[in-house]
Amino acid sequence: GSAPGDDGGGGGGGDGALPAYRSAAVGAFKFEYLDHTADVQLHAWGRDLKEAFENCGLAMFNYMSPLELVRPRETRSYRAEGHDLPSLLYGFLDELLFVFATELFLAASLTITTFDRVNWVIEAEGVGEAFDREVHEVGTEIKAITYSAMAISEERPDDAEVFVIVDI
Amino acid sequence: GSAPGDDGGGGGGGDGALPAYRSAAVGAFKFEYLDHTADVQLHAWGRDLKEAFENCGLAMFNYMSPLELVRPRETRSYRAEGHDLPSLLYGFLDELLFVFATELFLAASLTITTFDRVNWVIEAEGVGEAFDREVHEVGTEIKAITYSAMAISEERPDDAEVFVIVDI
Repeated sequence: GSAPGDDGGGGGGGDGALPAYRSAAVGAFKFEYLDHTADVQLHAWGRDLKEAFENCGLAMFNYMSPLELVRPRETRSYRAEGHDLPSLLYGFLDELLFVFATELFLAASLTITTFDRVNWVIEAEGVGEAFDREVHEVGTEIKAITYSAMAISEERPDDAEVFVIVDI
Repeated sequence: GSAPGDDGGGGGGGDGALPAYRSAAVGAFKFEYLDHTADVQLHAWGRDLKEAFENCGLAMFNYMSPLELVRPRETRSYRAEGHDLPSLLYGFLDELLFVFATELFLAASLTITTFDRVNWVIEAEGVGEAFDREVHEVGTEIKAITYSAMAISEERPDDAEVFVIVDI
């Protein structure tokens, strides 16, 4: 929170000292740093949107841990639903992130086996392994997918692309 | 820039390959990361606004390079103008940042000698030294001061505070 200190204890009054809740908080310096926010934009492409979505998922995994160190040891299935293309992309990436959060599973390759633009369903298989600090590098945590400035394009022949901003 | 690739060279057409400007850009992976944005909120306080401004300046320097390693070897004068308190705070921090950008000067202590709330002028002296990679730690670059959610408060007796978000 960034609200001015309202945790009582105030009223330094005329004695020249700062209120205790200030001086206790910081030691020698009279400043502090509050939570920072950060994001990065993923840009992925492929011959069609299916490939662009797959590559966007890989971009996300690679940001969390470089994919060249992730071995193809297990297969994990994913399923996501939406109601249009943006929500389908959001749901797909969110599913990858959720499975990573619960199982630490990193996919080094992704294949979308169902890309249903009538019922807005994606089914996919990832091949990879669980994150292991002895084997893998720690990248940057991705905290959330966002719809901010999301762009999905398939206007060029044989060249689709997506842009997704994620919170880090 | 985050616009879909408009650097010509497109038209992969029916030959199955991605356009050259894609494949040339990335090697094995069909994704890239575009500039990320990040910010941190500085919170500083003191017995009055003059002290809170001074401490906010120190918070900024300390974020760029820990102040405990900055020795009091030189004195540098600063001057900033504004038209109200927020612009004065902005101008003061921006001046500190500008002098750092041009001279690498880090202040380990700051004294505001003029805090003129009629003509909105700050004059200050910093004591410190130029950044030296042999001596100092590299912190995080501060790219710009912002007015976003800026707050300046002197409502409590003997306790003023400021909040400033800076781009990193």
